[in-house]
Amino acid sequence: MSFNTRLEQLIKQKQSFLCIGIDPDIEKLPPVLHNEQNPILKFVVEIIKATKDIVIAYKTNLAFFEYAGNAGMDALYQIRQEIPEDVLLIADGKRGDIGNTAEKYALAAFRNLKADAVTVNPYMGYDAVEPFIRDKQHGVFILTLTSNKSAKDFQYLKVENKPLYHLVAESAEKWNENDNCGLVIGATKPEELKELRAKIDNLPFLVPGIGAQGGDLETVLNFGSNKQGGGLVINVGRDIIFNSQESDFVEKAYRRAQFYKRQMISHII
Amino acid sequence: MSFNTRLEQLIKQKQSFLCIGIDPDIEKLPPVLHNEQNPILKFVVEIIKATKDIVIAYKTNLAFFEYAGNAGMDALYQIRQEIPEDVLLIADGKRGDIGNTAEKYALAAFRNLKADAVTVNPYMGYDAVEPFIRDKQHGVFILTLTSNKSAKDFQYLKVENKPLYHLVAESAEKWNENDNCGLVIGATKPEELKELRAKIDNLPFLVPGIGAQGGDLETVLNFGSNKQGGGLVINVGRDIIFNSQESDFVEKAYRRAQFYKRQMISHII
Repeated sequence: MSFNTRLEQLIKQKQSFLCIGIDPDIEKLPPVLHNEQNPILKFVVEIIKATKDIVIAYKTNLAFFEYAGNAGMDALYQIRQEIPEDVLLIADGKRGDIGNTAEKYALAAFRNLKADAVTVNPYMGYDAVEPFIRDKQHGVFILTLTSNKSAKDFQYLKVENKPLYHLVAESAEKWNENDNCGLVIGATKPEELKELRAKIDNLPFLVPGIGAQGGDLETVLNFGSNKQGGGLVINVGRDIIFNSQESDFVEKAYRRAQFYKRQMISHII
Repeated sequence: MSFNTRLEQLIKQKQSFLCIGIDPDIEKLPPVLHNEQNPILKFVVEIIKATKDIVIAYKTNLAFFEYAGNAGMDALYQIRQEIPEDVLLIADGKRGDIGNTAEKYALAAFRNLKADAVTVNPYMGYDAVEPFIRDKQHGVFILTLTSNKSAKDFQYLKVENKPLYHLVAESAEKWNENDNCGLVIGATKPEELKELRAKIDNLPFLVPGIGAQGGDLETVLNFGSNKQGGGLVINVGRDIIFNSQESDFVEKAYRRAQFYKRQMISHII
């Protein structure tokens, strides 16, 4: 089964678009974990245990694991075994390099981390993306319009009378021969999200920027879903996982995840 | 001292532009290393020992270390201690993400790996680059015109009557307030290299694509150096490190590195 088909099935089955962003900043972990052998691993395992029934995906932000050194990398390698089969693992590394190197990054993500999908940077073009989309079971979310302020520096530049990010989106449509490409579109750009969804119905959108970055969930739900009432992976990170610094952090994370998931249900056909 | 000033001093002092690309593909290691406890580490240590006097930098391609799992990551963390102070370590990960994540990638590279410089992808704009250039001692090479075939997909798109990669280069000039920005320009694009050097004299160019990718060294030397006869970091990877599959791989790597370095001397003022 292709990645995009599997994603659509999971959305219906779990009645959720929710993806929890696993950005385990070691300086922000609840103090109750400080005496654990591997605080990051313990934190992530507890968050996953509590929330796995109401999410369709976890997105691991590789930077936070690399930053934490050996303990971080150990945790990263053990996460897959905590995640059930009906939840996707998205390795968010935004990699992109020449073909022979991209092949190694693809294997590092799909074989070593056993991720189902990755995020990829389009700047180097097709051959930097191809190793990631070769197998239809593996999904690739291509950075298109990002949630940060400086997205305007290059992504909005006019090329052939359209912004560059439209050309990236059109390329992703062409690259979608295996039904496994998607786009990353920041929740902080609702009008652009609407416009892109009107043009492109068949690619899923991975939408970060809800919560700490200020994007609005209702707007994303209204503008971002496809005609079949699917096509969205809505990422919420810090607002869920760091909702409490006390020993109730797991319960608070669960409740916050439920809060988001409840708003999503009515939009899923 | 700023990174770019240090780089120029090293070029003069060592009479070399040579950077060896450490892409330790575990499937390509000489069989004589197969019984080592950590073949990748042993391979890299031997290559560095033999060549450290004639290079100005080593560029570690992070994909190959991630691909090799724990042994790869262990090797990656130990490389810095093998490199003398008069040789730069460039962590080639082509990272790029929103500010709070980019900060973690910067610390992973500069603090954990003790790299002197990194490669960064510009697609997300200034705030994805800023954490890397904050400290003038740390260098940042910004992907501008890459050596792969699909570079044409986006990098050559016309924006305001110039190709996108020119706008990236101009942005890097603006971001160079700490004298620590450089550009990545593939050796496979000699005319474009010439044109960029004519426009931009004050940024160093990191030039991959010599050797296995087919770029020509003499052309890069003629077109790429700045008015002071410096400004180049010329990367050669596979053609040096995998020059032999036999037990003479270290000697062959050294000879091949010398072959490149000798051609460079006459161009350095």
